[in-house]
Amino acid sequence: MTFQVRATDGAARRGAVTLAHGTVETPAFMPVGTAGVVKALTPRDLRELGAQMVLANTYHLMLRPGEDLVARLGGLQRFSGWHGPMLTDSGGYQVFSLSALRRLNEDGVEFQSHLDGSRHLLSPERSMDVQRSLGADIVMAFDECAPWPAPREAVEQAMQRTTRWARRSQDAFARGDDGRQWLFGIVQGGVEDDLRRQSAQELVAMGFSGYAVGGLSVGEPKPDMLRVLDTLEPLLPADRPRYLMGVGTPEDLLEGVARGIDLFDCVLPTRNGRNGQLFTRGGRLTIRNARYRDDPRPPEEGCACYTCRTVSRAYLRHLHLSNEITGATLMTLHNVHHYLDTLRRMRQSILLGRFAEFRQETLRALSAPARDEEA
Amino acid sequence: MTFQVRATDGAARRGAVTLAHGTVETPAFMPVGTAGVVKALTPRDLRELGAQMVLANTYHLMLRPGEDLVARLGGLQRFSGWHGPMLTDSGGYQVFSLSALRRLNEDGVEFQSHLDGSRHLLSPERSMDVQRSLGADIVMAFDECAPWPAPREAVEQAMQRTTRWARRSQDAFARGDDGRQWLFGIVQGGVEDDLRRQSAQELVAMGFSGYAVGGLSVGEPKPDMLRVLDTLEPLLPADRPRYLMGVGTPEDLLEGVARGIDLFDCVLPTRNGRNGQLFTRGGRLTIRNARYRDDPRPPEEGCACYTCRTVSRAYLRHLHLSNEITGATLMTLHNVHHYLDTLRRMRQSILLGRFAEFRQETLRALSAPARDEEA
Repeated sequence: MTFQVRATDGAARRGAVTLAHGTVETPAFMPVGTAGVVKALTPRDLRELGAQMVLANTYHLMLRPGEDLVARLGGLQRFSGWHGPMLTDSGGYQVFSLSALRRLNEDGVEFQSHLDGSRHLLSPERSMDVQRSLGADIVMAFDECAPWPAPREAVEQAMQRTTRWARRSQDAFARGDDGRQWLFGIVQGGVEDDLRRQSAQELVAMGFSGYAVGGLSVGEPKPDMLRVLDTLEPLLPADRPRYLMGVGTPEDLLEGVARGIDLFDCVLPTRNGRNGQLFTRGGRLTIRNARYRDDPRPPEEGCACYTCRTVSRAYLRHLHLSNEITGATLMTLHNVHHYLDTLRRMRQSILLGRFAEFRQETLRALSAPARDEEA
Repeated sequence: MTFQVRATDGAARRGAVTLAHGTVETPAFMPVGTAGVVKALTPRDLRELGAQMVLANTYHLMLRPGEDLVARLGGLQRFSGWHGPMLTDSGGYQVFSLSALRRLNEDGVEFQSHLDGSRHLLSPERSMDVQRSLGADIVMAFDECAPWPAPREAVEQAMQRTTRWARRSQDAFARGDDGRQWLFGIVQGGVEDDLRRQSAQELVAMGFSGYAVGGLSVGEPKPDMLRVLDTLEPLLPADRPRYLMGVGTPEDLLEGVARGIDLFDCVLPTRNGRNGQLFTRGGRLTIRNARYRDDPRPPEEGCACYTCRTVSRAYLRHLHLSNEITGATLMTLHNVHHYLDTLRRMRQSILLGRFAEFRQETLRALSAPARDEEA
């Protein structure tokens, strides 16, 4: 398992991560497969879209169907039929955002399942066990993500606990290491530059296979997020992959790549696809808008995806208003294509040494009058 | 537009219907695309499954998105992205099963939309207009389907009205005929053999491009349905296609083909796919059954469909219990494959002169202990 940077353009990097289940050309976007499935898509859809790596959620999978069942069925890849690279998160973020009756202490978090109220514990050791059973190529250290906004003291304590838990995660991971998984550390510290620096330095001193930036895109102003990324860029080792967790819009991906990020994940393309919002180079298009009632054009003119090659805005609007499953599938296909294609074009522009230009052009097109307002 | 019978085996026929949008090898099963989409599938899925012809519902489409919009967008095929043959029903059956506040008289049926309560009229002339706008290859005469059970007198009146409406349908169709659609008449008469005979004789005397058998599989005992088909078989012209509407189970299709039926449609494979019931050669499999919790086998061993080549029963059960859209898609794919494959094997067995044997073997496998009971 290796990471190679093949070209740089400013802070942007064009590289490749080779993992047990294949190679991921970076920068890359990972579609989110929360419950072991990218909602509304089949594994074949993902392959044909050019998806390289899929994220799955430890929290959801440990509750249903349970990591033991996934392990008995050969791990996430064999279970889901997606045989490419996968990454699992640590479960911590969902414990805080989804579960009830949490009790947090130094050992870990006790919580009740949002599905059936059953009681569970997540700790660094338990998270490593679960992620080992799930069998993803990249697993994440168990972290505490402070909410936004939060008092500086709370952010600092969460960051310090994240460091201690990172060490316990590393120890637990090492005990079961079979050489087929990589462990990433997660930098916390909210929007406090000094805390972020401290977090990064402590994690880098421990030595992880890669470094994630957590706790961003949780409500903070965009300039704060970008400043934190600027702060971290020189501190994270250039020879290790960098992963910006849970981010974001196409604009965010451009800004992240400009600041040296290699991996992204976000539910936006899939969730918005199901909700009838389409991403295009010219901005977002809300399919239920009456202006599309008899619009014969594809969702995005010039787009090469199956949906744009096959159906009109009018048809997608009809499917959406009729709550047809196929509408969710077709719009998810388009949105995931849009994200993956944006990343393909970023990778190419870095190789060609014109990433800055590409970024400006793309941001300009996105900030033009919103698609839904057009004549 | 032609119909050719290429081979027969007993009453079973192996033929081909050539329509404006392509040729349908018969006997054939039409997946149901109620709102202009086969639920949970894309046009590409249908093509890859080997679907030949898709049914759409006039009632649903006239209410949403409206037949004028479909016509402006080039008709059902261009609208939906399914460019193969299509058939629309007359709308009558859904008016009786779905809408509220119906008022039926000799002119037609006034009803309120089940979607928004708006008032509409369907009559032979209006049904022809709507089906003309939708642009399917085969359109159906407007009929009155008596419920089951019903007094003989009510069945007789509905049958006689169906004959009068068939004549009005034929006249209205002729006025707008552009040579790209075929009109089928619908035989009614409930489970009364003499009424069925009378209905068939009156319709055949009018001369339609094909003949449908309506008003079956509406609750009557199975032997009554088969007896009606036996009664009608010698009365329907051998050189015209015969369509058994809204039928049925795999067993029903075998029995229908044995009685000279060429076309079928039914929501069972798609609806049951969404509900987690899978059709197999050995019977039905209810995926939420606890016995499949960690069953690593494909839904049906030996099945060539994408779902069976890709995922396990355990994974489908997980998707079903998690209400994942992809579960509906994967199970619909399998079920539609099962139906289309059953028809492919029927066509082959007729050519080989061994349909009776095939029917016996298939029925025997289906009546073995239910799949869910197996060891």
